[in-house]
Amino acid sequence: MRNLRVVVSYDGTRYYGFQTQPGGNTIQDIIQDTIKKLSGEDVRIIGSGRTDAGVHARGQVFNFHTDAAIPVERWAIALNTRLPSDIVIRCVDEVEPEFHSSYSAKRKTYRYSIDTNKFPDVFERRYRFHHPTPLSVEEMRKGLAFLVGEHDFSSFTSRRSTKTSHVRTVYEARIDASDGKLDLFISGSGFLYNMVRVITGTLLLVGEGKLQAGQVQDILEAQDRSAAGPTAMAYGLNLWEVEYLA
Amino acid sequence: MRNLRVVVSYDGTRYYGFQTQPGGNTIQDIIQDTIKKLSGEDVRIIGSGRTDAGVHARGQVFNFHTDAAIPVERWAIALNTRLPSDIVIRCVDEVEPEFHSSYSAKRKTYRYSIDTNKFPDVFERRYRFHHPTPLSVEEMRKGLAFLVGEHDFSSFTSRRSTKTSHVRTVYEARIDASDGKLDLFISGSGFLYNMVRVITGTLLLVGEGKLQAGQVQDILEAQDRSAAGPTAMAYGLNLWEVEYLA
Repeated sequence: MRNLRVVVSYDGTRYYGFQTQPGGNTIQDIIQDTIKKLSGEDVRIIGSGRTDAGVHARGQVFNFHTDAAIPVERWAIALNTRLPSDIVIRCVDEVEPEFHSSYSAKRKTYRYSIDTNKFPDVFERRYRFHHPTPLSVEEMRKGLAFLVGEHDFSSFTSRRSTKTSHVRTVYEARIDASDGKLDLFISGSGFLYNMVRVITGTLLLVGEGKLQAGQVQDILEAQDRSAAGPTAMAYGLNLWEVEYLA
Repeated sequence: MRNLRVVVSYDGTRYYGFQTQPGGNTIQDIIQDTIKKLSGEDVRIIGSGRTDAGVHARGQVFNFHTDAAIPVERWAIALNTRLPSDIVIRCVDEVEPEFHSSYSAKRKTYRYSIDTNKFPDVFERRYRFHHPTPLSVEEMRKGLAFLVGEHDFSSFTSRRSTKTSHVRTVYEARIDASDGKLDLFISGSGFLYNMVRVITGTLLLVGEGKLQAGQVQDILEAQDRSAAGPTAMAYGLNLWEVEYLA
């Protein structure tokens, strides 16, 4: 059996997240149904991780095993012609049998996008959270800096997290800002459930002046979800890139 | 009566163009209905020009006369809270009684966006025409240069044009290109029906090598629609900006 690694982009607006659910209408369900139509196989695709309902992906990665005779270079076009227009396969490669999209991932990057202009940019309205008052980007950057490195991120994950350890490493984080639009990029070894959205919700309070940048350090040390800010809206979040060892 | 000038952006995907039609579902119909709900007035808004079904606008301009007591700075937010999310008012200003969005316009700019990557960028799929093979941008730029200046653009307008003169002036035109994405910006005194889309359709043939750049000059001189290329798809077109004397 061949093991295929796929990079997929999607507009998550109308889906109940990546991972399969009883009601269907997830990215995984749609892709598995499409593979079935194409090759006749009942495959289970393995995502690099979940994305929540309404969250987008520029570069989600999944892999699956197949006996189909379709040449590797034909898979992307064959899937794209059968997928709805809000799911686009970017590339398909054959990888070693052991490759696993989740276990083999070395680094993930998320982007959270914010529009602080009085009225939203109509062309980005589904992808950029509208916060119609200004934010102090400098204070948000100071607050964000406390999160870089290896920390216990218990304050920044949903109480529903079932992970035994909340220790993760944030390798890099930055906020790009121009024309009232902010893009927070955060890269790490892995992310807890809702982690980027709780970080963003907390930094929004810093940007609004409701929290001091230095309090982000206190929140981190508290290791308590109730110390942090609210969970930012799903639609501003995008799984930007998943990286593997070459 | 006050005369208000409004800059509006819209995603034209689900509308039958800007101008009112018997069946409704045009940008003009939706905005007029919204003004009626807000002020109770039956107004007729005057657009800077039409946009076709499926064409977008970053900066369409219209004006209308009102007796409503609503302060000018309240109009934009009051309209936006009542409009669907794919129509966003950017600003409202009070102008002199003689101002007319169409007659007073000095310069218009359109953008036509193309994605030449093998698979489309899912987040721009409604705004960027997907042409899944490479184009020679240099040849397209050479062809485009022949159109700058005052010319009879009969070859580059729909046969359904009812204008007595097809002479227009293109002030500036350029193609920005990066990562396989092309943005054609074209500014002029005014544009004929389908003019930017026929220019784009012709330049696509040049980019594909099916026409020589120099043949754009011959097409212009022919003053005959059948000499030019096809009309490019509506969804790549965006009315970018309308300018007036200060």
